[in-house]
Amino acid sequence: MAGLFDRLKTDCSSEWNAYTRHAFVTSMADGTLPQPAFRTYLQQDYLFLIHFSRAYALAVYKAPGLADMRQALAGLKTIMDVEMDLHVELCATWGITKDELEHMPEASETLAYTRFVLESGLRGDLLDLQVALAPCILGYGEIGQQNRAATPHGPMAAAYQRWFGEYASDEYAEAASDFADWMNRTADVYLTEARYSNVRRIFSQATRLEADFWQMGLNAAD
Amino acid sequence: MAGLFDRLKTDCSSEWNAYTRHAFVTSMADGTLPQPAFRTYLQQDYLFLIHFSRAYALAVYKAPGLADMRQALAGLKTIMDVEMDLHVELCATWGITKDELEHMPEASETLAYTRFVLESGLRGDLLDLQVALAPCILGYGEIGQQNRAATPHGPMAAAYQRWFGEYASDEYAEAASDFADWMNRTADVYLTEARYSNVRRIFSQATRLEADFWQMGLNAAD
Amino acid sequence: MAGLFDRLKTDCSSEWNAYTRHAFVTSMADGTLPQPAFRTYLQQDYLFLIHFSRAYALAVYKAPGLADMRQALAGLKTIMDVEMDLHVELCATWGITKDELEHMPEASETLAYTRFVLESGLRGDLLDLQVALAPCILGYGEIGQQNRAATPHGPMAAAYQRWFGEYASDEYAEAASDFADWMNRTADVYLTEARYSNVRRIFSQATRLEADFWQMGLNAAD
Amino acid sequence: MAGLFDRLKTDCSSEWNAYTRHAFVTSMADGTLPQPAFRTYLQQDYLFLIHFSRAYALAVYKAPGLADMRQALAGLKTIMDVEMDLHVELCATWGITKDELEHMPEASETLAYTRFVLESGLRGDLLDLQVALAPCILGYGEIGQQNRAATPHGPMAAAYQRWFGEYASDEYAEAASDFADWMNRTADVYLTEARYSNVRRIFSQATRLEADFWQMGLNAAD
Repeated sequence: MAGLFDRLKTDCSSEWNAYTRHAFVTSMADGTLPQPAFRTYLQQDYLFLIHFSRAYALAVYKAPGLADMRQALAGLKTIMDVEMDLHVELCATWGITKDELEHMPEASETLAYTRFVLESGLRGDLLDLQVALAPCILGYGEIGQQNRAATPHGPMAAAYQRWFGEYASDEYAEAASDFADWMNRTADVYLTEARYSNVRRIFSQATRLEADFWQMGLNAAD
Repeated sequence: MAGLFDRLKTDCSSEWNAYTRHAFVTSMADGTLPQPAFRTYLQQDYLFLIHFSRAYALAVYKAPGLADMRQALAGLKTIMDVEMDLHVELCATWGITKDELEHMPEASETLAYTRFVLESGLRGDLLDLQVALAPCILGYGEIGQQNRAATPHGPMAAAYQRWFGEYASDEYAEAASDFADWMNRTADVYLTEARYSNVRRIFSQATRLEADFWQMGLNAAD
Repeated sequence: MAGLFDRLKTDCSSEWNAYTRHAFVTSMADGTLPQPAFRTYLQQDYLFLIHFSRAYALAVYKAPGLADMRQALAGLKTIMDVEMDLHVELCATWGITKDELEHMPEASETLAYTRFVLESGLRGDLLDLQVALAPCILGYGEIGQQNRAATPHGPMAAAYQRWFGEYASDEYAEAASDFADWMNRTADVYLTEARYSNVRRIFSQATRLEADFWQMGLNAAD
Repeated sequence: MAGLFDRLKTDCSSEWNAYTRHAFVTSMADGTLPQPAFRTYLQQDYLFLIHFSRAYALAVYKAPGLADMRQALAGLKTIMDVEMDLHVELCATWGITKDELEHMPEASETLAYTRFVLESGLRGDLLDLQVALAPCILGYGEIGQQNRAATPHGPMAAAYQRWFGEYASDEYAEAASDFADWMNRTADVYLTEARYSNVRRIFSQATRLEADFWQMGLNAAD
């Protein structure tokens, strides 16, 4: 039986493709993505991670039971205790200091996606929050898999390959799969057919905002 | 087809009876409820209405669509623009001034029920909020109907009869029926069998906290 | 003593000017704004009003006292009971049906500003929510005043003049002034110097997202 | 310079003493607290810890910056990764199984305090949430210190002494001190004199609900 994620992807296939096959991604794959585009992406992604942590904390708060609380806490710890430090290290290799990260302005596209996710969760229930988070967590996994054999050319080749490598890793695939299972378990309890159109709209909107986030990177290189 | 409310009442019949047939109610019906018990109830009910207004405002915020927003707004206006003024007038006939109402401490039982309702709504979705509100709105209607022929004796007879009269009125019955229909419509979209035990727990807890609210009145007369 | 709004405008003057003197506004004033730009703005503004209503409902919920609850409720009623109907009527004169309004997709820029406002309120307190709302309510008033003598040319002259007329009206000026007073009263209780940089950031971000909303209209005419 | 906690304790001294010197505590200190009272307390405290975790998760969500998020996350991990397991172990020594803990009904007093804390945080800001949490975290530390030399008599002596020992430990004192510092730092940014009466009311109400929680234990032994 296919889960909720597969159904959402199928029903939002044009948004999904526009996001997972965005020019930002395809030009990373062939190495033509301008360096300033990736640099801007990296900077904003730091701010993104902060609000993503807040979204996982909100999931702990909203969880209907202890098992869901533990699942959300595991995600929160991964982001705040591991990923944010890795991100700061990665930024350092680009000459972006921690101080710079903490003081730069948040782009409209970062504000849009992160606040949409958080507010969807506050307005609705845990399922709404998970569905709003799904394009990020599951989309990055899919982008990683699709580009695992990518061989970018040019001066940025190593950096872009490293990025794809991270999201194509078995560790990431397992984390994404855990998230999809968790969302599907929530859907087993909270999803009805009558509610589906609402859930699909959240997924569609979140996916569009993720594509906008890539576009923000591209725009920075114009 | 029986709606969600009937099912909840049946499944929580002992809590429901403990609330709707509480000694506070039965002694109002025969006129033996001590005056200080009713007075304390009246005072705390004012604070209750404030938080009840906040709960309807939260329902406007959480509503998944415009029709639900309008339904919740209608309830919010009824409480803040009509019921609170009526309540202040009623209190005045008891010699309780508006200033007194605004400065008295909130009883633990008032804190308990109101914050439970609000937090249930914030943690979950509109259905969780409606289910937490239901024992109040629908229980008062049922108490009114059950006691519409009550003939209290003694010095408080007129006051208690007036109270029952309000909740036995056609206007109140219609408002309660509208609320039940609204909750049932939400349940048509958002309720699953797998979720039902969680919804029942919210209803059971809210019903117990309503019984505690009656008991608070009785305790004041000890 | 100048209030919080004046201070915020001064400290965010570049964002404020980019918003209140945006090309969308100046081209409305001279009549050169393309009709599709205004049409798209009108459509998205309907969705905006729905979420703006939700923000006022949230203000009722978050209000620290009854006076603030009443102030927020008055705003909520104005939007849901008056402005939304007027907006539907205005759209009808453009051949945009109610059904169309209710089914069109929400633009990224609409998602961004509305969810930012709502989430700022949920994360923080009433002051944060008011500051996030201020660029809309007070900015429209300022745009109305600045362009009250505008004499647009061309086929859209009447429509654009009508729009400016609404926001230059004494009624709107009074509503905006009431809002500024309300925000200033909240600031009297809740604002500290140490907190000001945080409040300023919310104002700055909200103002940028309002400018993006104008830009969305312009982009639709490309 | 005395911090916010000292001021609140002084201004709410009667509620504070009623809580920290409650008969539940003093009879634990001399060993006369009936075993069923402590057993009921232990059981409900498990449910309390679940909602306390949710309150810390909410603090992560509401934190105005990364440092506050990290502080709240540290508290969340302590409760969910350490304290809850210790609590389950302690309950096991009393013959209370994990399954029993997970299925017992939540007492009104547990509902009251936990939902009050959570809703105070959602309505207001991080400071409101911290002030609502303070009576628990800081009160237990004070109760531990006050009774560190207690020598309970009778069959429950070891159990009660163990309990006091935990909250009189240097580890707990340090955790409590960290929390007070954190709340004081938040107050440095967010507290004004005009706001103080509101903050004091939250502290007073939360302290009363903590005393009610002790009383729930005593009532179970009647």
